[in-house]
Amino acid sequence: MSLLRDRFGGEVGGDMQRYSSSLELDLLMLKEDVQGSLAHVRMLGEVGLLEANEVSALSDGLAEVQAEIENGTYVPGDELEDIHMAVEARLIEKLGELGGKLHTARSRNDQCATDVRLWLRGRLQQIDDALRQLMLTLLDRVERDGDNLLPGYTHVQRGQPILLGHHLLAHAWALERDRARLSGALGRVDACPLGACAMAGTSLPIDRHRSAELLGFKAPIDNAMDAVAARDHEQEVAAACAICMNHLSRMAEELVWWSSAEFDFVRLSDDYTTGSSIMPQKRNPDSVELVRGKAALVHGCTMMLLSLVKAQPLSYNRDLQEGRAPLFEAVMATHDSVALMAGVWSTLEFRPDRFSSELEGDFSLATEIADFLVLKGVDFRTGHSVAARIVRWCEENNGDLRLLTPEVAREFHPALDADLLELLDPRAAAERRTSLGGTAPEQIKRQVGHLREQIAGS
Amino acid sequence: MSLLRDRFGGEVGGDMQRYSSSLELDLLMLKEDVQGSLAHVRMLGEVGLLEANEVSALSDGLAEVQAEIENGTYVPGDELEDIHMAVEARLIEKLGELGGKLHTARSRNDQCATDVRLWLRGRLQQIDDALRQLMLTLLDRVERDGDNLLPGYTHVQRGQPILLGHHLLAHAWALERDRARLSGALGRVDACPLGACAMAGTSLPIDRHRSAELLGFKAPIDNAMDAVAARDHEQEVAAACAICMNHLSRMAEELVWWSSAEFDFVRLSDDYTTGSSIMPQKRNPDSVELVRGKAALVHGCTMMLLSLVKAQPLSYNRDLQEGRAPLFEAVMATHDSVALMAGVWSTLEFRPDRFSSELEGDFSLATEIADFLVLKGVDFRTGHSVAARIVRWCEENNGDLRLLTPEVAREFHPALDADLLELLDPRAAAERRTSLGGTAPEQIKRQVGHLREQIAGS
Amino acid sequence: MSLLRDRFGGEVGGDMQRYSSSLELDLLMLKEDVQGSLAHVRMLGEVGLLEANEVSALSDGLAEVQAEIENGTYVPGDELEDIHMAVEARLIEKLGELGGKLHTARSRNDQCATDVRLWLRGRLQQIDDALRQLMLTLLDRVERDGDNLLPGYTHVQRGQPILLGHHLLAHAWALERDRARLSGALGRVDACPLGACAMAGTSLPIDRHRSAELLGFKAPIDNAMDAVAARDHEQEVAAACAICMNHLSRMAEELVWWSSAEFDFVRLSDDYTTGSSIMPQKRNPDSVELVRGKAALVHGCTMMLLSLVKAQPLSYNRDLQEGRAPLFEAVMATHDSVALMAGVWSTLEFRPDRFSSELEGDFSLATEIADFLVLKGVDFRTGHSVAARIVRWCEENNGDLRLLTPEVAREFHPALDADLLELLDPRAAAERRTSLGGTAPEQIKRQVGHLREQIAGS
Amino acid sequence: MSLLRDRFGGEVGGDMQRYSSSLELDLLMLKEDVQGSLAHVRMLGEVGLLEANEVSALSDGLAEVQAEIENGTYVPGDELEDIHMAVEARLIEKLGELGGKLHTARSRNDQCATDVRLWLRGRLQQIDDALRQLMLTLLDRVERDGDNLLPGYTHVQRGQPILLGHHLLAHAWALERDRARLSGALGRVDACPLGACAMAGTSLPIDRHRSAELLGFKAPIDNAMDAVAARDHEQEVAAACAICMNHLSRMAEELVWWSSAEFDFVRLSDDYTTGSSIMPQKRNPDSVELVRGKAALVHGCTMMLLSLVKAQPLSYNRDLQEGRAPLFEAVMATHDSVALMAGVWSTLEFRPDRFSSELEGDFSLATEIADFLVLKGVDFRTGHSVAARIVRWCEENNGDLRLLTPEVAREFHPALDADLLELLDPRAAAERRTSLGGTAPEQIKRQVGHLREQIAGS
Repeated sequence: MSLLRDRFGGEVGGDMQRYSSSLELDLLMLKEDVQGSLAHVRMLGEVGLLEANEVSALSDGLAEVQAEIENGTYVPGDELEDIHMAVEARLIEKLGELGGKLHTARSRNDQCATDVRLWLRGRLQQIDDALRQLMLTLLDRVERDGDNLLPGYTHVQRGQPILLGHHLLAHAWALERDRARLSGALGRVDACPLGACAMAGTSLPIDRHRSAELLGFKAPIDNAMDAVAARDHEQEVAAACAICMNHLSRMAEELVWWSSAEFDFVRLSDDYTTGSSIMPQKRNPDSVELVRGKAALVHGCTMMLLSLVKAQPLSYNRDLQEGRAPLFEAVMATHDSVALMAGVWSTLEFRPDRFSSELEGDFSLATEIADFLVLKGVDFRTGHSVAARIVRWCEENNGDLRLLTPEVAREFHPALDADLLELLDPRAAAERRTSLGGTAPEQIKRQVGHLREQIAGS
Repeated sequence: MSLLRDRFGGEVGGDMQRYSSSLELDLLMLKEDVQGSLAHVRMLGEVGLLEANEVSALSDGLAEVQAEIENGTYVPGDELEDIHMAVEARLIEKLGELGGKLHTARSRNDQCATDVRLWLRGRLQQIDDALRQLMLTLLDRVERDGDNLLPGYTHVQRGQPILLGHHLLAHAWALERDRARLSGALGRVDACPLGACAMAGTSLPIDRHRSAELLGFKAPIDNAMDAVAARDHEQEVAAACAICMNHLSRMAEELVWWSSAEFDFVRLSDDYTTGSSIMPQKRNPDSVELVRGKAALVHGCTMMLLSLVKAQPLSYNRDLQEGRAPLFEAVMATHDSVALMAGVWSTLEFRPDRFSSELEGDFSLATEIADFLVLKGVDFRTGHSVAARIVRWCEENNGDLRLLTPEVAREFHPALDADLLELLDPRAAAERRTSLGGTAPEQIKRQVGHLREQIAGS
Repeated sequence: MSLLRDRFGGEVGGDMQRYSSSLELDLLMLKEDVQGSLAHVRMLGEVGLLEANEVSALSDGLAEVQAEIENGTYVPGDELEDIHMAVEARLIEKLGELGGKLHTARSRNDQCATDVRLWLRGRLQQIDDALRQLMLTLLDRVERDGDNLLPGYTHVQRGQPILLGHHLLAHAWALERDRARLSGALGRVDACPLGACAMAGTSLPIDRHRSAELLGFKAPIDNAMDAVAARDHEQEVAAACAICMNHLSRMAEELVWWSSAEFDFVRLSDDYTTGSSIMPQKRNPDSVELVRGKAALVHGCTMMLLSLVKAQPLSYNRDLQEGRAPLFEAVMATHDSVALMAGVWSTLEFRPDRFSSELEGDFSLATEIADFLVLKGVDFRTGHSVAARIVRWCEENNGDLRLLTPEVAREFHPALDADLLELLDPRAAAERRTSLGGTAPEQIKRQVGHLREQIAGS
Repeated sequence: MSLLRDRFGGEVGGDMQRYSSSLELDLLMLKEDVQGSLAHVRMLGEVGLLEANEVSALSDGLAEVQAEIENGTYVPGDELEDIHMAVEARLIEKLGELGGKLHTARSRNDQCATDVRLWLRGRLQQIDDALRQLMLTLLDRVERDGDNLLPGYTHVQRGQPILLGHHLLAHAWALERDRARLSGALGRVDACPLGACAMAGTSLPIDRHRSAELLGFKAPIDNAMDAVAARDHEQEVAAACAICMNHLSRMAEELVWWSSAEFDFVRLSDDYTTGSSIMPQKRNPDSVELVRGKAALVHGCTMMLLSLVKAQPLSYNRDLQEGRAPLFEAVMATHDSVALMAGVWSTLEFRPDRFSSELEGDFSLATEIADFLVLKGVDFRTGHSVAARIVRWCEENNGDLRLLTPEVAREFHPALDADLLELLDPRAAAERRTSLGGTAPEQIKRQVGHLREQIAGS
């Protein structure tokens, strides 16, 4: 029987019970709910609202209830609505009136807000661990395979030759920003609502600083109404997850296409591909397709949380319960996806020579011509135009830049002397881009060192 | 004529031109585009890629082009695609070949990324200014009207009596977090892509640190591919705006309903209401309805930016251009809405006595009974149950808690002695909630001081 | 062991298994999966690809597997990936090689697409049933309580007096459009992919018309690649659900505020309210708050499905699996919410006299003055202006329209004779609006009849 | 000066004016606004609320105002809020008191709702025209290039050889469903709110059937409150556009990748590609990238409209104004994108022999082996397993299916006789798939005929 129905004659109709229960999802927060209650009880004891023996009896009882739910000896029914009621009801069964003292100077509003913040704190730490692991995996691949030559793409068109390390580092830097963003979100999660009660605080002499301290929070939340009504941290966490998932989806997209017969640049390990029920030759990159798909889900979770809170008057409204599912889904899908991607990257194989011959004479070297002219004092627009005309001429002659002889070059522009041809080597072209952040090996090495420090430092 | 069409025979078809041009929106970034070019030119001069006289001619030329566009003497056509091409084309018209040197060691990819970051940096500062102004307005209202008694609501049901200051401060704290969140986003905006070129850097001897310094950026972006491909900062800014708009929408929702004849708690000033085309008595709270509506728009902008970047392979793809409209809309709508809300709050009137008589004996005092029993040593659940039964009894007798006499009270629980009745005063009930963050006046005062320091300190 | 791993040496890693399995959700489609297989087997028999005894053995086997899963004697593990593999693997365990014939001329791509369409067909019918029930409930309330007078609101400001029936019918008409919209979506769901195989059809002599007929589909899908790649029907169903949820959310919003102490216009039944863990007097309208909250979820589901399919190349990609969760959630949440709302509306109570005295002399009668002048030949803008000035005068004299005497009225406009005052009766004002769709009782009655016919007719 | 400010002392503050004005966007509906007013005036004349000469003076005046705005001789200021006020204010300037009669028995609520519906009706017809054009373009390409052999992909892995016509038709069928979906939406747009007035109808003797008829609407809307509050048709139109854009985005994604050097299967015409500001060789498929990007925008527009209306109480609230921008954007972006895609498809070139040699012996023929065995009576799962082992064997021998000799084949399964090898021809494999909707030429031809009929028939 629900603890809250005293005032009403009958029971809530069965469909309403099912419709409104959050119990199944709440079980994910069982540990946090008990943790919050233990701290609350201890604080109540310290300020004199509970006797020492009451504190210890309640604490023991809470631990027992947690164990009973975890090992399945107590299975709360949907009529208990949520995890908070489920734990308290069982405690009262065990301890009688004493169990009824647990909810002193507390309401479900602040209790539930506390649980979610505790849960998030733990999960955000796990995502950070997984992100660091994924970054380390990428850095390992940079060190192992970073010298492979491949085209740098814009618009999925070959732009300029680059080294694989340059490309992989672009992904790694994005993940480093995800870590910073999630850490900022964690800073706003890390504040304690406990003791805010319904939304007005209490006249009982509680010590909210102590509750916060016992739960490892930075500080109690300053305003009781804000403490129970605020959900911006949930929206922020979901948004940070959505942005992180977008980074994973960009990697995933590349791996899908690079796995195609046409690109043929990577081969995902068997552990991360699946077969077809009808086409026996298939090596489908399902793992990364699913990552791409889960990005869409996490986007939607963010939208749910934003739309949910829009135009909610203060303070607590029951709609807010519906935020738990998308929040948990966003966080867990992000964690699992980051972890999966570490597995994918650590086990795939690159085809080292895939592009080296194809890039000989490739038009992706055309920028070299323009830059050559710039160094000769020609303005860039003219250089660009000369290079474009050379490309067109090669195409019309059904060839590539290897058609270019010193004589032909000179016809396009008098400054195009024989030195030019030496520049038209793809690897040399990549290695020459030594500007800060360029694709040259020394720039790659610098970034790897820098990122390893960042990862270690935190 | 477009500068980029050299390689193709004809012109792009008219509809494609219209479809692909971003010129109209780009004009919002004219100042930033020229600012970026000026810094680029100066750096090119310092490293020897331009002569001193070239630097000054180009700089003068750029300033002229900016002025011409601003005063309408030069109106770029859609065939120029974007602001970058529009400025450069005009410069070449003015300076001939020298103008063609502007684009040395730069591509539109890094140029455009730089412009947007410069634009965002300025606008985020403006939003912060507006948020501080709005918070100060709220704090002023707390000091002026914060003693008004009103019901604290959960589920739009009266919960416990509170003071208006307590309620307004809940909103103010949310805005303070918005400031922190936007500041975090600004930290990730504040990095300089200039010199990344297409996505591989350059072999020309540029100084990206110097470009960053000249533009006031914290540092250059470490990886050239990341510099042109990253859009997480745009998604983050939009998400932070969406969350901020949700806070405004919560205020707005309250003001709409509080303006109704039924609540009748606030009267918006004439400046922020409008009339009806058909019902002459109407004072419609259009201003805050629009704020609520714009929250939906900014949510959608966030979704656009997330969906846009999902599964984009590195590095630049033209889809990314479409992100500019939702980004700008999100930022500008948020700024304008924050500013408008400051006007709304500073000019509205509260009806000070609206609730004072209605709260006499109101059931929102029922928690007092439960808390009273707790202090007498009764467990909270029993106290809650006693209070609930008293409420039911009052309802059955068609009255409120003023029906409660000492005799009647004692029948519900022996510990309910005469002292109880003194507690059932709404203002006293509010003032008694002195726990940290409670609705008591001292807590309100503390928070006002704390927030004023935060606002001043930044 | 998975049936698809033949080609690879080892097993897929445990985390990939968990990450990629859709089994749990798939179990919702068990019945449909078996139904599809039964029709497929029967068709294979009819075209000679199976012997008669094979057909009956496979059919019996499929029925057994379904029963085993339903009664829990067979619990498929996650290594089986999905419901299709789970059923087939068990069938092969039972029937040996013969079980391997089930997948003749079929792939998981067309099989899964068929299952989802069968599932949707059934659920859309259930939503239609629930919508009709909800509409009938509203029409019953119109007939029972429709004569109650209340203010018609725009901008949550009182506009003109109306009858409750007029307001309730606005909601009912919206639901009728939801039915039409969902029926349109059903029309596009109702097409059979079975036999499309991987995406190219088959050289085996199957009869796709027969499969479609056996499953009760309107027709087979015309193109095999479209059959396995199309997901627009899923997006459409989710969007139609999202729109329907918006209609419910508008009702829900009104019921939340109408339940407040300030509006005090409805009292939800105990079955659809809940209490507070701390404030014993509360009757929180949780049911309708949850409906409002679930609207946000269904919006997000729609966004997930849209974002998921964006930029998916043909034909099947594994991302599409992730669409099942939001699709099912959208459909089930919508069904349950519609059903719940029927319960809410059928059990709530209106306070019949809530507004009658308050509307005497209320400014919501001001339009009557303008309309009166129009009938006297005055132009509407002048009439509107006169009425506005009268309202202002009443306000300045701290009263309402009851202050208006014939003498005062005439001072505002000579045409305002004594007949005017008779018009300023709220019920009469409502009953006078007999234009098509106006709030007059005859218009309400007409609409009830019309809607009852629509509901019965389908 | 605004017509609605009579009741207030001063003017609305400048920022509120700018914040609330919808005038700029409204100008897109000028024609519809005047059209609606003309019909209204004519109806008012017919029912006797206007004299014949008043009707003709007002009609002439309206036409003049429209012309003045169109040719720029009258430029309404933001203080006029919206197009409705802008037109009426100018009319009153011209006609004096008579102009004030225009708004008889009408409010901005029903007027604005009418304008948007008229606007949508026209634009939806234009989208349908563009969709038919795009479909015809695709069908032309099927007839011209449909015989090209290419791999049919699932998971971007080669599955089975198909003919290009089969692939293109999958896109065409999706568009045909878009037409049906938009037509369903149009059916719900096609209803007339005019005469609903503020939300309660009117006591004046208007004829709403006649207004609807004059404007070409199917019927008037049955309930006045519904008429002004309903926005489900806007959400539905946006969602249908979003779904259509997803179809375009799928095409676009394919064209982007097919344009890459690695796929090299299509060459977009110069009109739909652009160059690079720095890499002269680039032929960037910007046109289709923008289409893909605009899909994200239209998704977001849908989300805006859903989120906007969520939890809006009846009837009109000013938030709804904010729906106009996303609605118009969704509709116009969809129209322009469909039209652009027709240009893209009609001008691109396929490389006819791109895949023919690569598919010789390709593993995408593996299904042929399994199907061959099925026809010999072997169960499909065994056939699938045999084929998988053959693929592995070929890979291990660094070759493809051309390694398969009759002798080798027999070792894998005794039923694999010499006939098998003849089947391993990619074109023959495609042509053999004659099942309904299969990739065989006869199936392609049938579908083209069927679709041409559908297009012509409507």
